[in-house]
Amino acid sequence: MIVKGNLVDCTKEGTIRIRENNFLVIEDGIISKIYSQDELPDSLKNEEIEDYGDSLILPGLIDMHLHAPQFAFRGLGMDMELLDWLNTYTFPEEAKYKDIEYAKKAYKKFVDALAKSYSTRAIVFATLHTDSTILLMDMLEESGLKCFVGKVNMDRNSTDELIETTESSIDSTVKWLDICKDRYKNIKPIITPRFIPSCSDELMKALGNIRGDTYGLQSHLSENPKEVEWVKELCPDSDGYLDAYNKRGNLNKSKVDTVMAHCVYSDDKEIELLKEKNVYVAHCPQSNICLSSGIAPIRKFLDNGIKVGLGSDIAAGYSLNILNQAVEAIGLSKLYWRYIDKNSKSLELAEAFAIATRIPGSYFGKVGAFEEGFEADMLVINDEELNKDIDDIRKRFERFLYLSDECSLRAKYVSGQKTVTF
Amino acid sequence: MIVKGNLVDCTKEGTIRIRENNFLVIEDGIISKIYSQDELPDSLKNEEIEDYGDSLILPGLIDMHLHAPQFAFRGLGMDMELLDWLNTYTFPEEAKYKDIEYAKKAYKKFVDALAKSYSTRAIVFATLHTDSTILLMDMLEESGLKCFVGKVNMDRNSTDELIETTESSIDSTVKWLDICKDRYKNIKPIITPRFIPSCSDELMKALGNIRGDTYGLQSHLSENPKEVEWVKELCPDSDGYLDAYNKRGNLNKSKVDTVMAHCVYSDDKEIELLKEKNVYVAHCPQSNICLSSGIAPIRKFLDNGIKVGLGSDIAAGYSLNILNQAVEAIGLSKLYWRYIDKNSKSLELAEAFAIATRIPGSYFGKVGAFEEGFEADMLVINDEELNKDIDDIRKRFERFLYLSDECSLRAKYVSGQKTVTF
Repeated sequence: MIVKGNLVDCTKEGTIRIRENNFLVIEDGIISKIYSQDELPDSLKNEEIEDYGDSLILPGLIDMHLHAPQFAFRGLGMDMELLDWLNTYTFPEEAKYKDIEYAKKAYKKFVDALAKSYSTRAIVFATLHTDSTILLMDMLEESGLKCFVGKVNMDRNSTDELIETTESSIDSTVKWLDICKDRYKNIKPIITPRFIPSCSDELMKALGNIRGDTYGLQSHLSENPKEVEWVKELCPDSDGYLDAYNKRGNLNKSKVDTVMAHCVYSDDKEIELLKEKNVYVAHCPQSNICLSSGIAPIRKFLDNGIKVGLGSDIAAGYSLNILNQAVEAIGLSKLYWRYIDKNSKSLELAEAFAIATRIPGSYFGKVGAFEEGFEADMLVINDEELNKDIDDIRKRFERFLYLSDECSLRAKYVSGQKTVTF
Repeated sequence: MIVKGNLVDCTKEGTIRIRENNFLVIEDGIISKIYSQDELPDSLKNEEIEDYGDSLILPGLIDMHLHAPQFAFRGLGMDMELLDWLNTYTFPEEAKYKDIEYAKKAYKKFVDALAKSYSTRAIVFATLHTDSTILLMDMLEESGLKCFVGKVNMDRNSTDELIETTESSIDSTVKWLDICKDRYKNIKPIITPRFIPSCSDELMKALGNIRGDTYGLQSHLSENPKEVEWVKELCPDSDGYLDAYNKRGNLNKSKVDTVMAHCVYSDDKEIELLKEKNVYVAHCPQSNICLSSGIAPIRKFLDNGIKVGLGSDIAAGYSLNILNQAVEAIGLSKLYWRYIDKNSKSLELAEAFAIATRIPGSYFGKVGAFEEGFEADMLVINDEELNKDIDDIRKRFERFLYLSDECSLRAKYVSGQKTVTF
């Protein structure tokens, strides 16, 4: 397959790269070659070319953190901080996913919306219910998106309707992983303790063992001051929140890395450990605003070589559009500079684009940029209405980034497969 | 005319008011009566009713501060603070409006976009060019929107292409106001010194005189620390930025009040003066983020009874959608609470709605709510896709507020006149 258009992606060095009227040659879902108009060999000129003319083509965006069952109530209940918000809005909603019929309806809406969004890949929390988690994974598989999905574990500090015993949590995780084996082409399970307050030490240790060197692990970290305090009380053995995960064996080396959402209150010691354990940070700026959590020190993470991605964190964030998160990330970094640390340079556009594409893409392999050997995740953008009369591709891209809700997709490919037709 | 739907507006007390299946009776653009289904008198049942069924109907939104000529470059150049941003991006763009043909094309796009937006009214900066300002006013008049529009004054600290002599600035303002007389039904001129750094003392004093007790006045106030410092140097006679306007006679009592954009760095003394002079504050949260300006003390303004509205501040803000500004205002107030003042309660949804509708509506008369005697500005919302399966009107409204970019307009009325058909 050959796809032609104006390619906009991020280099390894983190700059925005624009290649006008270039041709992506794709074999088995992988970019095998990239040619400019002059370079295209005669032998390929007779091949069928999907010519997107003057359209921008971007790598698919990566949503590093979101809760599928919360999609049903996004945009509601933004008047609380994390712990109250969980008890009041979130846990009651997630309890409904015990009912597979309810899950069928609600997850369908979520999967449809994610499929139509600018994201090609996501790392997803389901609920603690095995059946509806499998259902969600089946639906995502069908959509053509590539996702990690986690059956949530929680054996303490929840409501009566949304809790497991330690034993049943462990057993059902083993059972769930077994069901997943050989079932999916695009979807992978990921170990998902909700967060330290929801999981007893015994459960955490068992999950670390189940993870072994095979599975990835996702959870929440240092999101809210009260939560951080609570973890300190719950884990007197530990030297900080991430160290609590570490001491329970959750961060042991595995083929698939760890993702921690938020990291708003990660101090220098925690940043050290994030780096040492090669943990990906899922920065969720909209969520951090909506739940009054605060501003994460993204500049410090980047300066320390920690891999940062963006998360919509549906439904503490309300928008599935990762470019909105990128714009919010730039905005929060400016406020961080203004109010917290005048030595902390705010994020540049290229950095915001990198944490939406190339950097979190590496969690999935060679993903998130247009280079030989990379998987061909492509967004073909319709920015005609917004960018009428603007020729400069860099300007079109910059405006698209800020105003992507006023644009739309012409086509979306995941690993070379067209997933949705618009 | 009778319009039926689910009315959602703000009470005088600032609460969200929901009236399901109500009828607005409108005479000469004014709401003369509101009936519930049971109350509708038999005599009206045979009248033609514009029945919007289950749709939400909201008052039109008010954009208290935006720059029409900057619409062309919104979403670009977000990498600077105010003063550099003005010199690098804004002044060169505004200089182009000397060319009436350029203005014709660029203003058409702006007016079309504003007409299609959720705003029914706006307070607008044009440029210093009289001809293209008249052109903009003519186009806005045609659109049916109700706006205040200002020919900008600036006689110092600008570029060679975008500057007036003091004399020509005064003369052209008088001439412009003369042209405006009896020319418009919907559009009113408003005195518009750009900001203190752009206007000499002599010019400011003349504009105060021209304003007299007849015209409104709009300008910028205390947006950025470096700007505030600069004003202090420029006006050693004055006890603060707003006092500089005051000492130059710009805030004298008039039939139409003053609007000041931003007020990020207004201290208690300035807040006193804002209150004393009945100045409206145009809060522009997105702009204040994008230009790294900071967070305005909105809670203090509201506590002091100062009238606050929202401004898109195109193009320091990038979105014309005032509901996006409302959501950002809530977000910034949460960060203000978190980082600046733990006694400053964050904005509630109802307050964010009030500063988008009813409070700034009072600048235009009886505008911004559904009550007898109010002008009938109405937005008929299509939230079907977003709110499928949600019955509760309050929840539909709350989700619409956060996710209005995923919804659309079915119809838009300004003073009872349908302005755009969708």
